[in-house]
Amino acid sequence: MRLRNKTWAKPLIAAHPELILVRPENMASQWQTRFDKEQPLYLEVGSGKGQFIVAMAQAHPEHNFIALELQEAAIAMILKKQVALKLPNLQLVLGDGADLTDYFDDSEISGLFLNFSDPWPKTRHEKRRLTYRNFLSQYQAIMKPNALLQFKTDNQGFFEYSLVSLNNFGMTFELVSLDVHHDKRVTDNVPTEYEEKFSADGGRIYELVAHF
Amino acid sequence: MRLRNKTWAKPLIAAHPELILVRPENMASQWQTRFDKEQPLYLEVGSGKGQFIVAMAQAHPEHNFIALELQEAAIAMILKKQVALKLPNLQLVLGDGADLTDYFDDSEISGLFLNFSDPWPKTRHEKRRLTYRNFLSQYQAIMKPNALLQFKTDNQGFFEYSLVSLNNFGMTFELVSLDVHHDKRVTDNVPTEYEEKFSADGGRIYELVAHF
Repeated sequence: MRLRNKTWAKPLIAAHPELILVRPENMASQWQTRFDKEQPLYLEVGSGKGQFIVAMAQAHPEHNFIALELQEAAIAMILKKQVALKLPNLQLVLGDGADLTDYFDDSEISGLFLNFSDPWPKTRHEKRRLTYRNFLSQYQAIMKPNALLQFKTDNQGFFEYSLVSLNNFGMTFELVSLDVHHDKRVTDNVPTEYEEKFSADGGRIYELVAHF
Repeated sequence: MRLRNKTWAKPLIAAHPELILVRPENMASQWQTRFDKEQPLYLEVGSGKGQFIVAMAQAHPEHNFIALELQEAAIAMILKKQVALKLPNLQLVLGDGADLTDYFDDSEISGLFLNFSDPWPKTRHEKRRLTYRNFLSQYQAIMKPNALLQFKTDNQGFFEYSLVSLNNFGMTFELVSLDVHHDKRVTDNVPTEYEEKFSADGGRIYELVAHF
């Protein structure tokens, strides 16, 4: 969802170049230098307010994480948390999911997360959906062979679309869950802010895990 | 579901060799001789009491249909209807879905339907599910290239399993619907007996359309 602009966002981002980069176009293959330890790199495209990626970074100190987000107001909220937490395995990026191959080198990413992305329900907006084939091409380029893409949404139409889109792209499915919160196979679900609210209202969460 | 044996089933089947064949192993490439007209041949594997295939045969006089069913008591109920209706484009088969390549020639089938097959939910029964890879191999052999397989179920776990199984087999998805009865894209749904009852109780019907 779109957030209101925050007057404090720009100055906060400018004040923390060690934690956040803006449209970084000279970092490909250099990402490990931004972290304390060199370890597998996981990327979330569209991190929103960051509950997911922060929880993941806390739960998995053995991995490095990057939160990518297009909205300044949203990434600034994650930055606020990170300024307090100073997690050594989390870096933030203000940037566009359509430019991933500018930001990352081939096979640099060990896993990619898409959580509750905008479903863009109108057919004429298909190209904006983060599971549209143009995005999948970019994920494929920057991900290691057999690295997992994990996609969650509450939007039925978007999930139906994405199953067909990833299949038609030639991706191999590892897991499909039509009700994550009541699925015994999913033992390590990390909910987003949005997911917690939606699910508390009784809504179903869908998940697809797949690789190229 | 399993039906009770019917004492009238065997005599009725024996009395109508023009409408039904039992485990036919010499019919491959000869099926068109069983119909009034030579036209595309569609197969339902597991026809139950036959509401779907009878309605399809009535709605599509331009196609030929075969209802395959393993249970004598069930196929006999379809036969009873067909004895009354005498649809020229419907033939019945008492036989096993695991023996399809004995019954049909390569590329003889223009479309295949799986409706509310037994989900066999226990992991040790995976091989019995009609979307298990051994069955898919047989469908692939008897279906024309790009012919569509249409799969419907109300069972969430079976649908999740089948999405992964068909994807892993290399099939291409054309349509995924997570709620057929409220899906504007599905305009020609023909319900089975079971589907009507289940759906009236508020249950969701899932559908996958795919080709090899």
